[in-house]
Amino acid sequence: MTDPRLDLLRQSLPGLRLETDPAELEHYGRDWTRRWTPAPLAIALPGEVGEVQAIVRWAAAHGVAIVPSGGRTGLSGGAVAANGELVLSLVRMNRVLGFDPVDRTLAVQPGITLQAVHEAAAEHGLAYPVDFAARGSCSIGGNIATNAGGIRVLRHGNTREWIAGLKLVTGSGELLDLGRGLVKNSSGYDLRHLAVGSEGTLGVVVEATLKLTDPPPPTQVMLLALPSFDVLMQVFAALRTRLRLEAFEFFTDRALHHVLAHGGQAPFADVHPYYVVTEFAMQGEADEAAMLAAFEHCVAQGWVGDGVIAQGDAQAAQLWRLREGITESLARHAPYKNDVSVRVSAMPAFLAEAQDLLGREYPRFDVVWFGHVGDGNLHINVLRPEGMDGAEFVGQCEQVTKLLAATLQRHGGSISAEHGMGLVKKPYLWSTRSAAEIEVMRGIRRVLDPHGIMNPGKLFDP
Amino acid sequence: MTDPRLDLLRQSLPGLRLETDPAELEHYGRDWTRRWTPAPLAIALPGEVGEVQAIVRWAAAHGVAIVPSGGRTGLSGGAVAANGELVLSLVRMNRVLGFDPVDRTLAVQPGITLQAVHEAAAEHGLAYPVDFAARGSCSIGGNIATNAGGIRVLRHGNTREWIAGLKLVTGSGELLDLGRGLVKNSSGYDLRHLAVGSEGTLGVVVEATLKLTDPPPPTQVMLLALPSFDVLMQVFAALRTRLRLEAFEFFTDRALHHVLAHGGQAPFADVHPYYVVTEFAMQGEADEAAMLAAFEHCVAQGWVGDGVIAQGDAQAAQLWRLREGITESLARHAPYKNDVSVRVSAMPAFLAEAQDLLGREYPRFDVVWFGHVGDGNLHINVLRPEGMDGAEFVGQCEQVTKLLAATLQRHGGSISAEHGMGLVKKPYLWSTRSAAEIEVMRGIRRVLDPHGIMNPGKLFDP
Repeated sequence: MTDPRLDLLRQSLPGLRLETDPAELEHYGRDWTRRWTPAPLAIALPGEVGEVQAIVRWAAAHGVAIVPSGGRTGLSGGAVAANGELVLSLVRMNRVLGFDPVDRTLAVQPGITLQAVHEAAAEHGLAYPVDFAARGSCSIGGNIATNAGGIRVLRHGNTREWIAGLKLVTGSGELLDLGRGLVKNSSGYDLRHLAVGSEGTLGVVVEATLKLTDPPPPTQVMLLALPSFDVLMQVFAALRTRLRLEAFEFFTDRALHHVLAHGGQAPFADVHPYYVVTEFAMQGEADEAAMLAAFEHCVAQGWVGDGVIAQGDAQAAQLWRLREGITESLARHAPYKNDVSVRVSAMPAFLAEAQDLLGREYPRFDVVWFGHVGDGNLHINVLRPEGMDGAEFVGQCEQVTKLLAATLQRHGGSISAEHGMGLVKKPYLWSTRSAAEIEVMRGIRRVLDPHGIMNPGKLFDP
Repeated sequence: MTDPRLDLLRQSLPGLRLETDPAELEHYGRDWTRRWTPAPLAIALPGEVGEVQAIVRWAAAHGVAIVPSGGRTGLSGGAVAANGELVLSLVRMNRVLGFDPVDRTLAVQPGITLQAVHEAAAEHGLAYPVDFAARGSCSIGGNIATNAGGIRVLRHGNTREWIAGLKLVTGSGELLDLGRGLVKNSSGYDLRHLAVGSEGTLGVVVEATLKLTDPPPPTQVMLLALPSFDVLMQVFAALRTRLRLEAFEFFTDRALHHVLAHGGQAPFADVHPYYVVTEFAMQGEADEAAMLAAFEHCVAQGWVGDGVIAQGDAQAAQLWRLREGITESLARHAPYKNDVSVRVSAMPAFLAEAQDLLGREYPRFDVVWFGHVGDGNLHINVLRPEGMDGAEFVGQCEQVTKLLAATLQRHGGSISAEHGMGLVKKPYLWSTRSAAEIEVMRGIRRVLDPHGIMNPGKLFDP
């Protein structure tokens, strides 16, 4: 027996691909979080913008909630459908629509993967500089929905900076063409920036025009072992003024421990509290001299416990694997993830206080820290002890997250740097945004989604 | 006899500086547009954020409209008070509040001039890269209200890109602390970007945290005379890939004519249809070789009618004066200004059609074109013929602007690239934003300004 509302949808859109098979419901009903049991009403896989509009209008008429869905690689439950929602999956709308060599823009459908965008840009001798590990699975629509960041934000900014235009189907089914590729446009509110980071609560992104840029310069990679986070910040300050940094990533000895246990190669004989992988432009003798001078400066200051400069691409990739392999090496422990940010200047004080807090609250748990120093983004992974039940583990972690949120609030930080709020972070929105701000957000949502059907219950309660 | 509402304001804020002198009313009631007769109720000059909030709450209670006001250098009438509004001038709130060397941010009050920001950044060995001719008078609050652009947008983007945080007093008198200097923050709608470019219709910016960057590299300046706009676009494409462009500005022979009549020095013996002033990084032999190769390439293609590379800073400044002196040289003709944009790739087709249109509609008028090729921004100045009445002139120009707006709409452009909509462009908002977008903007305004007191009648009718 099918839902009579779905019969009406089928009648109005006979060509629509609509799935109700239990395996499909389970597959499309969840993202990389595994806390909720998928229970969508159905999966709609539209092939073009008109179908998306018709689906939204049908949903508005019948009070059906919609979960916009892309690569479902999210870590905050933004794409989970656990309450009889219609999953509106954009995976079939995954084409490049056009390239303009003068504007240096690439128009794409939302379901295209980040990696396919990288490849399309490279075909034209250009680059789309947003990058992170989920590149092969995540979709541009999802990147826009969470204003995705990653490892190159220090130099290139977040997804937001690379959106020249986007088309949004609002919760009323209206198609808004926002930004339209204009570099300069002072004609009212920039609704494009409102859509970026809205996690599907204002509408569905059905097309995006991405800015492209010159490919990155040749680079060099260096790994440093450091005795403390304060020294790490001094090294950051010294390198930032001397080199053209493309990335400056840190991790702790615990993170390295797991990567090595997962097959990574030990870079140094000794164990050190902190490590930094940094990548910077290397285009000639002046850059070479600057690098050596910077390295020698750090050594002369007594900052460097150990260090290695990559000799060739293979070693550079090997050094990067120590950082990029962390998430994969932790996966089998089903870690509880916090993704927080503070101003760069606030990192040492926040980190000290947060490490104290977690040491006190998690005496039995293994806590792994890593992150992006250049943009104030800290990833905290708490590992589930062997034999502990998943629900009990999450319950204990949630208690600590409440304390962590209060610490973040005192330091002016954010409970979600780049993962979004979704279902996971929603209870802690108060720590990052004031009550007045949240009221304004709710009001704005009512303007763009008057029926309350767009990803309800994500980000905040309606 | 004073307005009883003002008596109540004085009673509740006895320390507030409040002006009702007719000379002050006229001075603060208008901006660089001269079309409207100033008629404000009074001028309030608060000294701190709490006073701003109290003023807004008083205005909400008594239904008094507020015109937020900075350097009043606007060209679209956004800061005009011609209908009994209270002018809320931020000129006394003009201090630097703090500098953070790690975050590389400068916290300022909204009344500080752009030039004072440049100077404060330079004191710390850094730069705030937004720049344009009104720098000595315009205020950062006004820059934010219009998302001001200028001559370095090609490389550095608009004001929007440089706002790490801002504090906004909404139309309800709530103080929102938006962005808070976080580089990464995916915790709901980015209301900071909603405030940027909102022209005082959502609230009053009372503080801003500006991102700073490294000072620009040493540069070289080149002036080229070119036979056509199509060639100009080819030169742009050739230089963009070969040089690190900081600016790429064009103007027509009519523009040069006025600058020379105003005391400028003729760069070439002959007259040419188009001129380009371009500035690019020059940091060593590789840059020098690239410049010469690029110049020779353009000459070999037969693109260059004449050209000069500046020999030293004095000549560089002299070449820049040919471009930067245009506005001043036209001032005595009281020009009617259009400030429009299209995608860079759409410039040749739009320019051809617009020049046709203006040649047909303005056979008697002198029309001067100049602008920023790298960001698709064209400035069109129509000069008032000697002896023609100002109101008649504006009336004729408005008729043509309607036609121009329709042309822009066909080419996907904007009726306001960087000046804002204010009173001047408001009638043409339909050409840049769809009816659905305008409805969303109205709805958002009702959320942030429920009493309709924030700069009503600017940007759009309430």
